[in-house]
Amino acid sequence: MMINIRYVLAARPSGAASEQHFRREELPVQQLEEGEVLIKVHYISLDPAMRGWMNAGTTYVKGVEIGAVMRAFGAGEVVLSKHPDYAIGQMVTGLLGVQHYAVEKGAYLTLVNTAEVPLSWYLGLLGMPGLTAYFGLLDKANPKPGETVLVSGAAGMVGSLVGQIAKIKGCKVAGIAGGPEKCAYLLEDLGWDIAIDYKHTPDMVARLQETLPEGINVFFDNVGGDILNAALTRLAIGCRIVICGAISQYNQSTPIGPSNYLKIVSARATLSGIIVFDYFGRANEAINDISTWVKEGKIKYREHIIPGIEQFPDSLNKLFTGEHQGKLLIQNS
Amino acid sequence: MMINIRYVLAARPSGAASEQHFRREELPVQQLEEGEVLIKVHYISLDPAMRGWMNAGTTYVKGVEIGAVMRAFGAGEVVLSKHPDYAIGQMVTGLLGVQHYAVEKGAYLTLVNTAEVPLSWYLGLLGMPGLTAYFGLLDKANPKPGETVLVSGAAGMVGSLVGQIAKIKGCKVAGIAGGPEKCAYLLEDLGWDIAIDYKHTPDMVARLQETLPEGINVFFDNVGGDILNAALTRLAIGCRIVICGAISQYNQSTPIGPSNYLKIVSARATLSGIIVFDYFGRANEAINDISTWVKEGKIKYREHIIPGIEQFPDSLNKLFTGEHQGKLLIQNS
Repeated sequence: MMINIRYVLAARPSGAASEQHFRREELPVQQLEEGEVLIKVHYISLDPAMRGWMNAGTTYVKGVEIGAVMRAFGAGEVVLSKHPDYAIGQMVTGLLGVQHYAVEKGAYLTLVNTAEVPLSWYLGLLGMPGLTAYFGLLDKANPKPGETVLVSGAAGMVGSLVGQIAKIKGCKVAGIAGGPEKCAYLLEDLGWDIAIDYKHTPDMVARLQETLPEGINVFFDNVGGDILNAALTRLAIGCRIVICGAISQYNQSTPIGPSNYLKIVSARATLSGIIVFDYFGRANEAINDISTWVKEGKIKYREHIIPGIEQFPDSLNKLFTGEHQGKLLIQNS
Repeated sequence: MMINIRYVLAARPSGAASEQHFRREELPVQQLEEGEVLIKVHYISLDPAMRGWMNAGTTYVKGVEIGAVMRAFGAGEVVLSKHPDYAIGQMVTGLLGVQHYAVEKGAYLTLVNTAEVPLSWYLGLLGMPGLTAYFGLLDKANPKPGETVLVSGAAGMVGSLVGQIAKIKGCKVAGIAGGPEKCAYLLEDLGWDIAIDYKHTPDMVARLQETLPEGINVFFDNVGGDILNAALTRLAIGCRIVICGAISQYNQSTPIGPSNYLKIVSARATLSGIIVFDYFGRANEAINDISTWVKEGKIKYREHIIPGIEQFPDSLNKLFTGEHQGKLLIQNS
């Protein structure tokens, strides 16, 4: 009998999530029903959206129930299958949860090809975050060569990919990130044009005016709050604002709205969002392009892999404090 | 020698504009230069944008200088002309200012045809506000028959026209307005489907949920603040939000941002604004359609005409307190 170790949601946080909001459980792996697959989870993805899933109510997906396994994307190996499309030893991704073993309907899984790339990449560069960056930038904002693209949360998984794709498309790319190391990474490793360290920038409006006098043609926002509000003061005519997230706000009980939103009107700008689920049918476009760019050396990718599921409750908050460097993952032992 | 009576901007308000921010002046009408036209101003338009023009700095147009004539749209009659396109007795509109006589370059004036409609209509139904409503709804939001259109500031000049055009296009139309008289006007005189009196609605989110369970396909916002924020909770998938103004915010030194803006993401909605100046080249489309609809009895129009320029400083604020009914104008004696 196989034993599963899992983390369930024990309480809903009002601010930051921490150990007290999860409970570790050990219990036997359940029997498979017809159509189900048993997966040994190798990697658990830590994503900003998880904080929202811990709230009650529904946004674009339902919140996790108290007592249920904490929802998370994961990648792993098929160890038992009662579904004709999956065989033992195949690699899959899906919403596998924070646990060692997942039982999931075959219909909800995606087979992935690990012949040329590591399995973990399907949780980042070639997974949801990769698709989010690719379609959020190219489909929603459609940047033209020579245009100025500003990215917040620029050293994060999605942000760093957005800026790299924008560079490939011939744009001038500016990133906002927290701390000198992250800014050095953007400028030196990724070759971006401008990096702004928001932790050492007392007046973001003035700094944006100074560094981007031509204004912003595309703003890809992962952060919200004061940074979104400052960026709104620098919109060029016809700017496309793509809201991907608002990581500065997820832990706030009363989020800040962008008081400068009327600048969208005067700049003839548009604001919309990116929901990656809408692009699943087109996933291969992104996977093919990104894989090609990686092979050509045009895209760099960093992973921050934390060993052991026991680190999960402590690690989720790194996304919000910005302590991590690159895509944050738990690797199961 | 003709004497002009005019109101200049004397001081910049921090909150509401009132008498102390204007100064009445009497002085001789200036001589015409080549290319200029002298207009006897019959009607002065009072518009929400005027409050913004009283601020320092630049939005999409520059603020009025201290000591300069208060900027306002006006309609009047040519009484002298040094421009080949204008002859004495012709009727024109333009940024004529808060005064009895305006000297303006011919290039900045528009000839209007008053054979079939009153001159004053070119400041409302067939002027900027009419074009704003027409293009803001039809070009920016493109409503389909059967869709639900929500309008804030619904009994105002722009709002009431937006909703009437949406009814003509076969939409379900809901309006938010202040007070039972305005709501009765929307339901009984204009035949809208739903009217919500925000002054007597303690919980706007609940009220919108109750009255618009299907969600909003188009939101045309003249108001901003809490009403915008409440509307964001009721977006149907693919909602088009058109920001026309934020009259609840123009008198605030620290405007409120819409804290629910992430609902735009989950609803796959878009937010953009309407700047009527962008549509001047297409003005005749709007004037032709609106004129036809008026003749067919499909559009109703109300004017609130205040006699005498001396009423100007007191009257502007009616736009913000909502005391007026219909398009607010000053008629010069």
